[in-house]
Amino acid sequence: MMNWKEWRHITKLDPDKVLGDGAIAEIAASGTDVLMLSGTLDVTPEKLADLYDQVRDSGLPVVVEPADPTGARFEGMDLVFVPTVFNAAHPMFVCGLHKEWVQHFPIDWNKVVGEAYVVLNPASSVGKLTHAKCDLTPEEVAAYAVVAEKYYRMPVFYIEYSGTYGNPAVTKAVSEAAEDIVVFYGGGINSAEKAAEMGQYADAIVVGNAVYDAGPAVLKDTVKAVR
Amino acid sequence: MMNWKEWRHITKLDPDKVLGDGAIAEIAASGTDVLMLSGTLDVTPEKLADLYDQVRDSGLPVVVEPADPTGARFEGMDLVFVPTVFNAAHPMFVCGLHKEWVQHFPIDWNKVVGEAYVVLNPASSVGKLTHAKCDLTPEEVAAYAVVAEKYYRMPVFYIEYSGTYGNPAVTKAVSEAAEDIVVFYGGGINSAEKAAEMGQYADAIVVGNAVYDAGPAVLKDTVKAVR
Repeated sequence: MMNWKEWRHITKLDPDKVLGDGAIAEIAASGTDVLMLSGTLDVTPEKLADLYDQVRDSGLPVVVEPADPTGARFEGMDLVFVPTVFNAAHPMFVCGLHKEWVQHFPIDWNKVVGEAYVVLNPASSVGKLTHAKCDLTPEEVAAYAVVAEKYYRMPVFYIEYSGTYGNPAVTKAVSEAAEDIVVFYGGGINSAEKAAEMGQYADAIVVGNAVYDAGPAVLKDTVKAVR
Repeated sequence: MMNWKEWRHITKLDPDKVLGDGAIAEIAASGTDVLMLSGTLDVTPEKLADLYDQVRDSGLPVVVEPADPTGARFEGMDLVFVPTVFNAAHPMFVCGLHKEWVQHFPIDWNKVVGEAYVVLNPASSVGKLTHAKCDLTPEEVAAYAVVAEKYYRMPVFYIEYSGTYGNPAVTKAVSEAAEDIVVFYGGGINSAEKAAEMGQYADAIVVGNAVYDAGPAVLKDTVKAVR
């Protein structure tokens, strides 16, 4: 696997959604760097295992991004990306679930990559679940990125517009504030233009819903746009 | 200054409290490793400056532990210990104030040391201010320490019983769970016995209120107990 810090294009697949026949092969041929298995709601270990079985022979690295401790599967995964939501309304989503995870589950810390999320679409599942305070200025989001990098020493800062296309000024401000922290942008990318716009600031863009809504053909365009 | 990770005894002085004549000299002669200027309530930049002027020539390292962004003074300070309260009821105390700090104040990150607090006395000022969830088992506090060390990669875990003597089983559990993270214990240490009991588990003990309540003479006993 290439160093994950060099990824430019992440394809996010939801264990709670269904992919059509041949979709995995098309995704694998798109040029995307990695498959990230991730969903906010109704992800069970069984659904995760099913999706993993579908993608394990794709030739791509496979990582998981659990929404809660029960979703943190290590078996077969190259890495486990563990989110925290800095602008959540409750510390449960910042450090509380993490405490539960440590208490009740075995953890291979060598595979764990911490992601500091700022969630910016209040209508998204993750926005609703975490009651995220989404009316933030670019400067505020950038300040969170500095907290993540300098205070918490986290490896990833994730700008999450889940389901809607975001404000490029936010991604720009974050990229200017970030020194070593790797910046992911996710939300509403369903065209080469949007991929290019966010990809000029973010280290990696995440394409998720478009795979289901527009079909995997859209991936190739978004991949090309960030190379 | 010796490496702060080797401190065994920290004397905490509150800018909102008054020390009697000769107290600083007695504190400086006690053998304590460092003076930490820190208070939860009513600490103003002016009071902090006054206390700093009193202690600056003590010969001891002087660090500050701000309760909010306005208290983070760098001038003259050897280090700035910046707390986060993992068991607070609101993310403001986990990452929100930190974001405000980044937005509105200049920061010398080379002097910043992050401290992951768990606050365990609900009746203390910090317990009330942060509405900390204090009914935690030793295993839960130890799990927070692992989150601080492995997930957030923080340098300090601070067991804070502020104003009351805590449960040694908590400090023991944390010390067993901690690998590289430095463990501070603070709260209710006013005798050699208590210093020795918590000092056998914590990397450093913090003596604060006793300096004001019992007078600085108590410091010498608590210092000896952890050497």
